[in-house]
Amino acid sequence: MADLKLPTRAEDYAEWYNQLVLRAQLADYAPVRGCMIVRPYGWALWENITAALDQRFKATGHENAAFPLLIPKSFIEKEKSHVEGFSPELAVVTHGGGEKLEEPLVIRPTSETIIGHAYAKWIQSYRDLPVLINQWNSVVRWELRTKLFLRTLEFFWQEGHTAHATAEEAEAETRQMVDVYTDFAWNEAAVPVVPGRKSAAEKFAGADITYSLEAMMGDGKALQFCTSHNLGQNFAEAFEIRYLDKNGQLQFCWTTSWGLSTRVVGAIIMVHGDDQGLILPPRLAPIQLVIVPIFRTDEEKTSVMESAVRLKKELIAAGIRVKMDEREGLSPGFRFNDWEMRGVPLRIELGPKDVAKGSVVLARRDRPGKEGKAFVPQAGLPEAVQAAMVDIQKALYDKALAFRKANTFEPANYEELKRAVEKGWALAWWCGDGGCEARIKEETKATMRCIPLEQPGGEGVCVACGKASKEKAIFARAY
Amino acid sequence: MADLKLPTRAEDYAEWYNQLVLRAQLADYAPVRGCMIVRPYGWALWENITAALDQRFKATGHENAAFPLLIPKSFIEKEKSHVEGFSPELAVVTHGGGEKLEEPLVIRPTSETIIGHAYAKWIQSYRDLPVLINQWNSVVRWELRTKLFLRTLEFFWQEGHTAHATAEEAEAETRQMVDVYTDFAWNEAAVPVVPGRKSAAEKFAGADITYSLEAMMGDGKALQFCTSHNLGQNFAEAFEIRYLDKNGQLQFCWTTSWGLSTRVVGAIIMVHGDDQGLILPPRLAPIQLVIVPIFRTDEEKTSVMESAVRLKKELIAAGIRVKMDEREGLSPGFRFNDWEMRGVPLRIELGPKDVAKGSVVLARRDRPGKEGKAFVPQAGLPEAVQAAMVDIQKALYDKALAFRKANTFEPANYEELKRAVEKGWALAWWCGDGGCEARIKEETKATMRCIPLEQPGGEGVCVACGKASKEKAIFARAY
Repeated sequence: MADLKLPTRAEDYAEWYNQLVLRAQLADYAPVRGCMIVRPYGWALWENITAALDQRFKATGHENAAFPLLIPKSFIEKEKSHVEGFSPELAVVTHGGGEKLEEPLVIRPTSETIIGHAYAKWIQSYRDLPVLINQWNSVVRWELRTKLFLRTLEFFWQEGHTAHATAEEAEAETRQMVDVYTDFAWNEAAVPVVPGRKSAAEKFAGADITYSLEAMMGDGKALQFCTSHNLGQNFAEAFEIRYLDKNGQLQFCWTTSWGLSTRVVGAIIMVHGDDQGLILPPRLAPIQLVIVPIFRTDEEKTSVMESAVRLKKELIAAGIRVKMDEREGLSPGFRFNDWEMRGVPLRIELGPKDVAKGSVVLARRDRPGKEGKAFVPQAGLPEAVQAAMVDIQKALYDKALAFRKANTFEPANYEELKRAVEKGWALAWWCGDGGCEARIKEETKATMRCIPLEQPGGEGVCVACGKASKEKAIFARAY
Repeated sequence: MADLKLPTRAEDYAEWYNQLVLRAQLADYAPVRGCMIVRPYGWALWENITAALDQRFKATGHENAAFPLLIPKSFIEKEKSHVEGFSPELAVVTHGGGEKLEEPLVIRPTSETIIGHAYAKWIQSYRDLPVLINQWNSVVRWELRTKLFLRTLEFFWQEGHTAHATAEEAEAETRQMVDVYTDFAWNEAAVPVVPGRKSAAEKFAGADITYSLEAMMGDGKALQFCTSHNLGQNFAEAFEIRYLDKNGQLQFCWTTSWGLSTRVVGAIIMVHGDDQGLILPPRLAPIQLVIVPIFRTDEEKTSVMESAVRLKKELIAAGIRVKMDEREGLSPGFRFNDWEMRGVPLRIELGPKDVAKGSVVLARRDRPGKEGKAFVPQAGLPEAVQAAMVDIQKALYDKALAFRKANTFEPANYEELKRAVEKGWALAWWCGDGGCEARIKEETKATMRCIPLEQPGGEGVCVACGKASKEKAIFARAY
């Protein structure tokens, strides 16, 4: 509530982010290092994200379930790359009910192992396939460097886990979920992600293929928006997930997993936010429109509030998420700034003159100052608001896409690549060799984000070693 | 899927319950002792429960948030009765990221402590009150004797936590949530719970007053459906949750907490189920109606499926949750039994004759055999189904209420009380003395469930000691 200015993004991007998350009351630090409290405003945003995704998961045939958060430690050790990837990050429960446990338990860092164990029990025949299950939960990974939403010890997410009869079906599922996530990112979060394939070095511990969606943040760095993994038969073999095929032969299943977490909230903040604060896409915003009534005398108050209450009802009836700012003793300017900081897409300013004229001032968060303000008649206001929200949603996407394009460079050589990753992304020919990838990471701090599914075609020479290359990859510094 | 008979409730009530939970695929045992996997059918039921409650919580001004699952062990020790109540049940994390932790962490058994810590930080002034927050999550309590849904190490629930300026407001909130839960139990779960007050011995560890809703199971035992606690200033003092009042004086807040868990799924099973299996109340049933198409020839299949698909569309368009049973190679009788076991409230049987007549057979799960079957015209089917669901919802409630009344006894003396709790509940005068309560528990295994909010008035003599008593209490054996 204190009217202190945020640092600008140019001054200190990291500090702008941290202060904004706290001041907008999206989240707070927890008493345990690296954990976060998601406050009501942040959780309402996450609930809208979960609703938009859950509806898409169900439309593609998935069901929700809940698997336990405690996993026998030995489970993690059954899949070779999985144990290497996750062992250093585990939280271990050694005591329960006052006694030392015979076998330590870990808090799930992800649920492939415990779900694999269940699938082995549930799946007998080809008739039981496919199994298409998702769960919404939280997981714990003992991260050393943490940042609210972006990397926390405990984070909230969904993890989908599916089992199939054939390699083709598993790959089709993995790719379908890339499409589902891309649809969500583009059309709900207004984040122009680039879907692509991870390198061997960057893929999930236990996957044959990992796809990710990469998003460009406001400082030009990359953020992995979410991932979809084709696990091949790795977990099926480790947990003996098998089925009798139509010929009575016992076969291993093919499995997938895919997840999206609360770091997406961080992405939305960094993609759309400006120096005044958050800018939330209307489709996900907890509050889509705030009404700020303005009056000085009791008489003015009566007339302004009468209109404000009536308009609020009309807007809510039209399915719009509306908040009335009824705080008194605060100047209109202070209240405008406060709601701008919290990223509410639209604001109605309503004073005695507006009431007299039968109109309101409708202000767009994404266009600061006078340019974003319009006098709008009270008659037909819900339709005008709906139209404005569609406009804002599109404008946010377009702006983020233009920014991504302006900050994606196509370096012709290694020197150009080095300069490119100082400012944004480098989309460069890469031979596919892990040595080149490692050298780039070592020398430029840029990692191989993904090999975009959409390729220019043709051939080029690897930006690192000069060998013939058939694919372009995105290299960037990343969150 | 195996067509084995369940044990009847009369034969073995506990085994009837266990087998039903597993065979209806509501839940399964997890590899960690005492934990459960909630399978998609069970989770869909829980999702409907959460939606019905969440809507009520939001309508009464509450917001959702998320607090961490890891709590410093020292937090639990700050409130005296809280530590005594929960210490024996804790799961303790001693290692994280490969290192021994300086201070052990516990997995939350409930979140009063960590939320109290946050509220102390967030609440400064009377302007910040009330704080009305709920969270949906899971908690861990190291229980020794476990049973799917009824008592598990990890269970899923919601926990509301509020802070207020005055004792009166806190008590009003505590009672409001009793009303919200009662509304849910009666009108959504069709469970005729009795709201009442807990004794000092049975109340929550840290509460001044605990209210609970008690439900009678099909075997006459009681089950605590949910609780609402007035925490007084106990946690406010332990965590220094204070506010500056209008006169500039620093005051401790008054807090409440209230929760409802997945044990409610167990209650629904045991209140409504019969020897054929589950009977789910239509308002919460994941599948409200199943269509079973019946045909022998390809020609019959074409015509039956044409009608079936059309009717399914019409029913879904009317907002009804419909499943089409397209399994082939299974007899109609087998499929009927299967859906009856899974508790689907309504079944449509559709064969060639029905298609010719333009009608369907509509079978009610709550009225077995011919009595529950009716020929219903296909025209106007959605309206007929909606009406039938309203009927079934009411019939389930009425039946459960009649059962509760028939099995609630009003013993005039201790001998009658002993006999009463063998069969059902004893509603008896009680002087309020913990000694009488302890003696009854010791000698009859019946605990004081609650002092119902609705009292007969007048006075009587305590069923245990014969002293004058002003209130009647429910004594019963309980889950």
